[in-house]
Amino acid sequence: MNTRLTLSLDAMGGDNAPEMVIEGMALALADLPHVDFLLFGDQRQLDPLLAKHKRLEAVCQVRHTEDVVSNDEKAGAALRSGRNSSMRLAINAVADGEAVGVVSAGNTGALMAMAKFVLKTLPGISRPAIAKSFPTMRGESLILDLGANVTCDADNLVQFAVMGEVYARNNFGIEKPSIGILNVGSEQMKGHESVQQAFNILQNIDLPIHFHGFVEGDDIAKGTVDVVVTDGFTGNIALKTAEGTAKMIGAFLKQDLLSSTMSKIGAMLAKPALKKLAMRFDPRLHNGAMFLGLNGICVKSHGGADALGFCSALNAAVILISENLNGVIKDEMSHVEYSIETASQD
Amino acid sequence: MNTRLTLSLDAMGGDNAPEMVIEGMALALADLPHVDFLLFGDQRQLDPLLAKHKRLEAVCQVRHTEDVVSNDEKAGAALRSGRNSSMRLAINAVADGEAVGVVSAGNTGALMAMAKFVLKTLPGISRPAIAKSFPTMRGESLILDLGANVTCDADNLVQFAVMGEVYARNNFGIEKPSIGILNVGSEQMKGHESVQQAFNILQNIDLPIHFHGFVEGDDIAKGTVDVVVTDGFTGNIALKTAEGTAKMIGAFLKQDLLSSTMSKIGAMLAKPALKKLAMRFDPRLHNGAMFLGLNGICVKSHGGADALGFCSALNAAVILISENLNGVIKDEMSHVEYSIETASQD
Repeated sequence: MNTRLTLSLDAMGGDNAPEMVIEGMALALADLPHVDFLLFGDQRQLDPLLAKHKRLEAVCQVRHTEDVVSNDEKAGAALRSGRNSSMRLAINAVADGEAVGVVSAGNTGALMAMAKFVLKTLPGISRPAIAKSFPTMRGESLILDLGANVTCDADNLVQFAVMGEVYARNNFGIEKPSIGILNVGSEQMKGHESVQQAFNILQNIDLPIHFHGFVEGDDIAKGTVDVVVTDGFTGNIALKTAEGTAKMIGAFLKQDLLSSTMSKIGAMLAKPALKKLAMRFDPRLHNGAMFLGLNGICVKSHGGADALGFCSALNAAVILISENLNGVIKDEMSHVEYSIETASQD
Repeated sequence: MNTRLTLSLDAMGGDNAPEMVIEGMALALADLPHVDFLLFGDQRQLDPLLAKHKRLEAVCQVRHTEDVVSNDEKAGAALRSGRNSSMRLAINAVADGEAVGVVSAGNTGALMAMAKFVLKTLPGISRPAIAKSFPTMRGESLILDLGANVTCDADNLVQFAVMGEVYARNNFGIEKPSIGILNVGSEQMKGHESVQQAFNILQNIDLPIHFHGFVEGDDIAKGTVDVVVTDGFTGNIALKTAEGTAKMIGAFLKQDLLSSTMSKIGAMLAKPALKKLAMRFDPRLHNGAMFLGLNGICVKSHGGADALGFCSALNAAVILISENLNGVIKDEMSHVEYSIETASQD
């Protein structure tokens, strides 16, 4: 049914690369029978790893390079000196039409800088955003930007809303996704100029959305809206704060359950329930930060991902491709009209 | 040992006022035998409530007023038209020297606006900040600002660092508290101009601190530093995101534990451990947002607080007073010298 498509992979990016890249592909194979892989990296390391997976080997092509972007390399430096790196060559393959999307678990800043430079942004989008879906009380929501843009004006926020809306409609299957702008209060006069201007625009814009208005930090986990729009500074800190809180609670839960014999027995009996809880928040199942707004699909796996995590990132990339996300964003951006007015201050 | 001190209370602020205010005072009485209370509110409501607590009644004085600032009133409007409100009169009592601190569970924006207008800021402090201590993997840390200032420059952030440092030294008993500025990465070139300038200043400032540098969202729960400094937009969203995440995990934990008979039995056996976990994050035990930097002690209780929560807020106010927090901040601000240079950009 599906026509075949090719994903280009930075086989050397990530703490556990290239092993977890190969094992991740092997895990993904069953779900993605229509995908071919173009791997960039050290052939001497990759060939023996691939030899263990005959079915995978048949859909893989390796392009040798010894250059790797390191994790502590600054984005600018990587852009200048990493022209032959596995990351850069994997991105180039998308620009050259050899692949329809790229996945890397390498240096985030370098990946964003290179992807922006090579792929450019979609028409109508001035800056790409990093987006992720996350578990909520209601199911799943999308949040963006998670760190691509430290400061954002109203224009950026509105573009993020469009990208998020297209994602939610296609991926969550919601006809008119609800959109909220993250703010310090839900009242209309709250927040700084950028969020107030974006509020005014989204309130009047002609898009297939339900504009909810402002949402607060606790609305993220509540799942108050399908798409949470924010600047990259706030979004990055909010997401990492949520992750840190979840880890802390998990650690205290474990510690408290192990604090007496009785509760240890209790925990043993409740093991399936506790496992279910852990599964809900398993970062490996939610791995894959999407770089939206680029003229090409680009997904960033967590640097510390294992095979299961990398497999999730591969699936995320294929979903974006299958849904023609970029085509729809381009189309909506060419139709939508708005002007930025200074928000009225109380 | 302790000399007597007077707290001034907005008896009508909060969803459950005035009942929870009176019950909260009654709970606090044992811990605060040296405190007198000056209550502002509707005498006809307060007198019968106080009559139930003879020992409390003996240390309370009621000042009648029927005006109350409502929760949905805008700060500016409350400032103009709320001159006879229980909130405003309670703040006035501190300015007039009748009380050494004020506690209210009313409208946060109105309380900050009135407190700023009536009490003014401490010498050397241009803007007050809202601060709270929160549970971490390591114990307890302070975070500020939590929403008083939607945008902050480097100067504001440095002043927050001084206020936080004084609090941590006195309240956590740490000689040289560690300070971190919340950012999207720990590397020195990360973030926007304000955080970079504040980084440069705090790195060279002559204060009894250990300046850790930048911290990320997950460092909040880790307890990486004793004091997390941030602007009010980011801090408000980070704190509410953490609260929302904790609530979501608690709800899922309950739901999953109730999903089978076996896990229900397990949960029953582990009840003391689960209770211990819930206690760690009981918002009532961490209630009381401190307005630091004002020329007078002002503590905001959560609007939905019950008696136990309000009791925590009363304790928080008394601690700030007993430690002469404002005296120490004033002293440090008069000694500290720094100049703001434009941060170098990579």
